[in-house]
Amino acid sequence: MLLYNSAVSGNCYKVRLTAAQLQIPLELQELDVVDRSQRPAVIGSLTPVLRVPVLVLDDGRPMFESNAIIDYLAEGSALMPEDPYERQQVLAWQFFEQYEIEPNLAVARFFRLFDLEPGESLWRQKQEGGRKGLDALERGLRGKEYLVADRYTVADISLYGYTHVAAEGEFDLEPYPWIRAWLERVAAQPGHIRITD
Amino acid sequence: MLLYNSAVSGNCYKVRLTAAQLQIPLELQELDVVDRSQRPAVIGSLTPVLRVPVLVLDDGRPMFESNAIIDYLAEGSALMPEDPYERQQVLAWQFFEQYEIEPNLAVARFFRLFDLEPGESLWRQKQEGGRKGLDALERGLRGKEYLVADRYTVADISLYGYTHVAAEGEFDLEPYPWIRAWLERVAAQPGHIRITD
Repeated sequence: MLLYNSAVSGNCYKVRLTAAQLQIPLELQELDVVDRSQRPAVIGSLTPVLRVPVLVLDDGRPMFESNAIIDYLAEGSALMPEDPYERQQVLAWQFFEQYEIEPNLAVARFFRLFDLEPGESLWRQKQEGGRKGLDALERGLRGKEYLVADRYTVADISLYGYTHVAAEGEFDLEPYPWIRAWLERVAAQPGHIRITD
Repeated sequence: MLLYNSAVSGNCYKVRLTAAQLQIPLELQELDVVDRSQRPAVIGSLTPVLRVPVLVLDDGRPMFESNAIIDYLAEGSALMPEDPYERQQVLAWQFFEQYEIEPNLAVARFFRLFDLEPGESLWRQKQEGGRKGLDALERGLRGKEYLVADRYTVADISLYGYTHVAAEGEFDLEPYPWIRAWLERVAAQPGHIRITD
């Protein structure tokens, strides 16, 4: 399979991590995250949204949206529950991730990594939104080892993607003991790779 | 099943529409969308994110996130494909909806419906983000009757939720002929109910 990838992107990292743990080899093609001018030419025929990751199956069929890609890869493995209620919980956490975590933690991190100046109002909006998301994640993890089904699943991979690099967007995880313990538990899983690997 | 609902919310409407088309009766409990002070007391033990919809199964187990709820309800019905690649496409469109459509179309509509003053910069951000999302949806619908699998699925329900009331957030659908034709097709489905029903 061919992954259109950006090394720095937490969304792309989710796919690389899932594939590594499922021992699925990936060919990577790197796209720039700042200069996006080539995207319509390179991935415009593969995805309507012009974002990475895009994963192309060996038969040429393309897939977009990181969480939908990893759920496809994980189907039938220990990373995806079979029980309908547990599957609903996996999806609920993944939708939450794209709604409250990624738009705040990833964007704040992007501003800082590339020395962009978002302006005071937008920066404050991302910081407040991110803390609200982290508050909800902390509530969801309280008393638990993993998000769903008492075991490591794609829900943990989805939420780990940007939460483990929260500090790069100036989010302080000190007030979130359940999140911090869970991050260590995820990083200790067999076959774990780092975002920089 | 008990649905914690807000009549005006497109996210709650997705659940009501899916349940109506699957002939699943719902008991509704209405929550205010502007005054959210009661939410921790009413739904705080049911969802970490304190948003509606929340659906409580007859055995008391709660579910959060609109798209994850409707996927649970639709499993095994004609609204949810069985083919793994088609299921990936359904999820991809639903994640796109929560990332690019809902945060812009729903929020702009909320500002207008409740006469809120978001400030020039935030209003412009929502308008530009919403048009970018609608552009992607138009690309995805070009040449197609439905988003996935050449038939009506939960992907269409998810995207219909806020797109069909785009005008209430001052989005003009005139430049989007594929979206407009698809909206009419979705509204003509058997068992369709309106957001105001």
